[in-house]
Amino acid sequence: MTLTVVPALLLLLLAAFAPELAAAASSSRRTIHQPPHFPAGLASLYRSSGRYAVADNGTVKPFTAHYFPQELDHFTFTPNSSRVFSQKYLLNDTFWRRKPTAGPLFVYTGNEGDIEWFTTNTGFMFDIAPEFGALLVFIEHRFYGESQPFGNDSDKSADTLGYLTSTQALADFAILITSLKQNLSAVDAPVIVFGGSYGGMLASWFRLKYPHVAMGALASSAPILQFDDITPWSGFKDTVTQDFKSESLNCFSVIKAVWDVLDDRGSNETGLLELSKTFRTCKTVQSTDSLTNFLYTAFIYTAMTDYPTPANFLQNLPAYPVKEMCKIIDSFPAGADVVEKAFAAASLYYNYTGDQKCFQVEGGDDPHGLSGWDWQACTEMVMPTTVSNESMFPPFNFSYEERSERCLASYGVRPRMHWITTEYGGHKIDKVLKRFGSNIIFSNGMRDPWSRGGVLKNISSSIIALVTEKGAHHLDFRSATKDDPDWVVEQRRQEVEIIHGWIDQYNKDIAQM
Amino acid sequence: MTLTVVPALLLLLLAAFAPELAAAASSSRRTIHQPPHFPAGLASLYRSSGRYAVADNGTVKPFTAHYFPQELDHFTFTPNSSRVFSQKYLLNDTFWRRKPTAGPLFVYTGNEGDIEWFTTNTGFMFDIAPEFGALLVFIEHRFYGESQPFGNDSDKSADTLGYLTSTQALADFAILITSLKQNLSAVDAPVIVFGGSYGGMLASWFRLKYPHVAMGALASSAPILQFDDITPWSGFKDTVTQDFKSESLNCFSVIKAVWDVLDDRGSNETGLLELSKTFRTCKTVQSTDSLTNFLYTAFIYTAMTDYPTPANFLQNLPAYPVKEMCKIIDSFPAGADVVEKAFAAASLYYNYTGDQKCFQVEGGDDPHGLSGWDWQACTEMVMPTTVSNESMFPPFNFSYEERSERCLASYGVRPRMHWITTEYGGHKIDKVLKRFGSNIIFSNGMRDPWSRGGVLKNISSSIIALVTEKGAHHLDFRSATKDDPDWVVEQRRQEVEIIHGWIDQYNKDIAQM
Repeated sequence: MTLTVVPALLLLLLAAFAPELAAAASSSRRTIHQPPHFPAGLASLYRSSGRYAVADNGTVKPFTAHYFPQELDHFTFTPNSSRVFSQKYLLNDTFWRRKPTAGPLFVYTGNEGDIEWFTTNTGFMFDIAPEFGALLVFIEHRFYGESQPFGNDSDKSADTLGYLTSTQALADFAILITSLKQNLSAVDAPVIVFGGSYGGMLASWFRLKYPHVAMGALASSAPILQFDDITPWSGFKDTVTQDFKSESLNCFSVIKAVWDVLDDRGSNETGLLELSKTFRTCKTVQSTDSLTNFLYTAFIYTAMTDYPTPANFLQNLPAYPVKEMCKIIDSFPAGADVVEKAFAAASLYYNYTGDQKCFQVEGGDDPHGLSGWDWQACTEMVMPTTVSNESMFPPFNFSYEERSERCLASYGVRPRMHWITTEYGGHKIDKVLKRFGSNIIFSNGMRDPWSRGGVLKNISSSIIALVTEKGAHHLDFRSATKDDPDWVVEQRRQEVEIIHGWIDQYNKDIAQM
Repeated sequence: MTLTVVPALLLLLLAAFAPELAAAASSSRRTIHQPPHFPAGLASLYRSSGRYAVADNGTVKPFTAHYFPQELDHFTFTPNSSRVFSQKYLLNDTFWRRKPTAGPLFVYTGNEGDIEWFTTNTGFMFDIAPEFGALLVFIEHRFYGESQPFGNDSDKSADTLGYLTSTQALADFAILITSLKQNLSAVDAPVIVFGGSYGGMLASWFRLKYPHVAMGALASSAPILQFDDITPWSGFKDTVTQDFKSESLNCFSVIKAVWDVLDDRGSNETGLLELSKTFRTCKTVQSTDSLTNFLYTAFIYTAMTDYPTPANFLQNLPAYPVKEMCKIIDSFPAGADVVEKAFAAASLYYNYTGDQKCFQVEGGDDPHGLSGWDWQACTEMVMPTTVSNESMFPPFNFSYEERSERCLASYGVRPRMHWITTEYGGHKIDKVLKRFGSNIIFSNGMRDPWSRGGVLKNISSSIIALVTEKGAHHLDFRSATKDDPDWVVEQRRQEVEIIHGWIDQYNKDIAQM
């Protein structure tokens, strides 16, 4: 889950975690500029530029970039509220059916990064667009990518960042979609929202809050229950642990052992120098925190992206990367150093292509503009995780007080700890939505640690959970490949079948004027 | 509908309209201070004072007043957003059943006036509380009554008034209810929201936006479809016209004729002096605008409150006041002056008790603090109404441009004309909610001009319209009286029956742990 670019506990260990990851994740994306290509009639209203992007499997995902004049604050009318910024969105109308009735709009509700990145990693929407005759729309989330309400000053302080909230983002989507449909003369076309990870949370919340704008939602790997005490706090790390343990008990034991050794060895300058060599850091590290995070990140994100085929979402990785990591660990001779083993395993994550000469473990840049998530984690997105005794990770307790103090120090704000469940619900969701709402698919893969905060059981006949035992973080949203295992092919087939059902019903309802 | 204290078109004629009405409406409400009386456990968290209020039919509505620390802005984290103000709410726990399972919370979602006024005019909730074992909660809307986020400066400018929006009000309700239930150890108790007029709009929107907080809503006379072009703009005035025409064709003709005569006669100073005498104004009027409004108000609000029994909501009035007004007009000799006739009819509205020596037709005070509605009409609540050829009112066209310019001049803001339907829906509501949402009753009476903007047909098996042909503005919410006609007794009976069904189902669902 890309939102965990800065998971709560990691932030406490190392603030530079997110940029590190984002830098590594960016390496293989290419964007080729092309002449403008957008629907007639939009030209006057929306600035645009034509682009094609190449996804990691080599297929071209064509889209055009557009910019919508969006208001800053939808929920107040203070003098600042009507300030307008340019919100970026991407369109692909290659497959859109216009007659006899307009085909659906498939809208990706962008999450915490630049929208082109998510678009090229959501090949599923391109794959299924032809059979639906769908218009593809990918909307960038405010304060990410190019959609910066205050330009370069957007992340300056709470005065500007204050407008980075999920509720404002949902209202942005509602306004943009409504306007777009009017401008396309497709007011009656059905809209289905798609989102993965935090984007999946937004997609499901959007369907619940704006049923008049979207008639269905496919929320992939959306941990909407990872708030308050709804889900056991240790579930996330326990799942990562289980992923590794399922491959090899030795692998699990090595990782479990490495943390203490690392701390012990790094307790003096000589040790840190030696560890810096072991980890091939570009500069000598100041403390073991950065190395701990280096490993943490590798294990957690590899578990999240434990895909059955080679992929390049967060990093370039082979198929079943957890298995590959454990193979590396298990291939060492019996008495080898645990730190060496752990580093070798982590290198699979950071350096699968072998082109990294050294590792920037402290600091780094942020090409996807993901750092806004730290602000969100300090305001609304308080998603507690802890470490249980069964975990391979070092002990960690979540504390509301610590989070609050850290956020006050960083931004001058305190999180509203229980706002998300007040605004969107979550407690007893099965009872609440049993007789309320419809047309939501929650898809999850149980290898994904975020699945533990997801909806894993059907709630009603049309609020459905599609769960695969072996799936990882929004695997279903990736482009189909010839090597896809049957179970993900089947998950995607069910999604398509359900969405067909929604659209057929919608068209019948609309026809009964 | 009390929100029309300042209907759009009247504002264009006379800005002082609202206070006028509010002043007149306040005369008979009495509040007697009593010792504190509130649930144990709340004392430390909520300031409170005990009060009893007497409703117009003489029955005592006991409640205690409390104050909740509410945050200013729920949707941003700017430095100003976490400012705390005291939101007033009233409790009555006389009938609340605590065991074996907590009885429901019946929550009134307060509208554009002080909450005690609405509470004493919502006797229905007190009437039905005993059979449900319900806790009664009446929450004041921010920026009305005592719930002023910036104290006396609250209505100073857009800097402060900017936070007066419906979305913030709904979030206030969600936070207050959630907190209250926790403090009362009644987290699982079902919550049903009640609201009339704008409060009814809020109640239905609350059920749609916060299904995890309220499991049902009774929205009485809620014109949620009086936006954009969903409902014909002339429906409101046509209904008022129809109400008068149904009593007497002569009555209709006199009122239709009066406007031109008034304008003509008031075109010079002598005429204005003479008209001031006819209208018994306390001061000589400066133009006929104030007299036009004086009549307008009387006819519109009498139609809205055309109750079958004597009542004192907006004004003290006899049963069937439209019929009584027309009787007055019809009792004049054939050649009598139309202005004399119209004034005599309007006097029923302003001076039924006969204690007014003269009328303050220009200016006046605002004891219920209703003036905030003008701000709301200048921001979110753009509810167009026009006058058709069939109307008894003078021609009037609604213009988005004019509204926008007036609001810019008054407050420095422009309305967001289509925000309400983007945020809450409304277009094709029957299609949208046919398969989404549940447990909402929309009650209306067709004598009420606001009924034309209401939901008048069942949408699904649990989103129900209860319509009476002869009912007026949220008549069903008034205390039962021995003289109530069968049709309103039946409407209330159906409401009670449906709510019983919701609660029974909820309790069964909750029990299936």
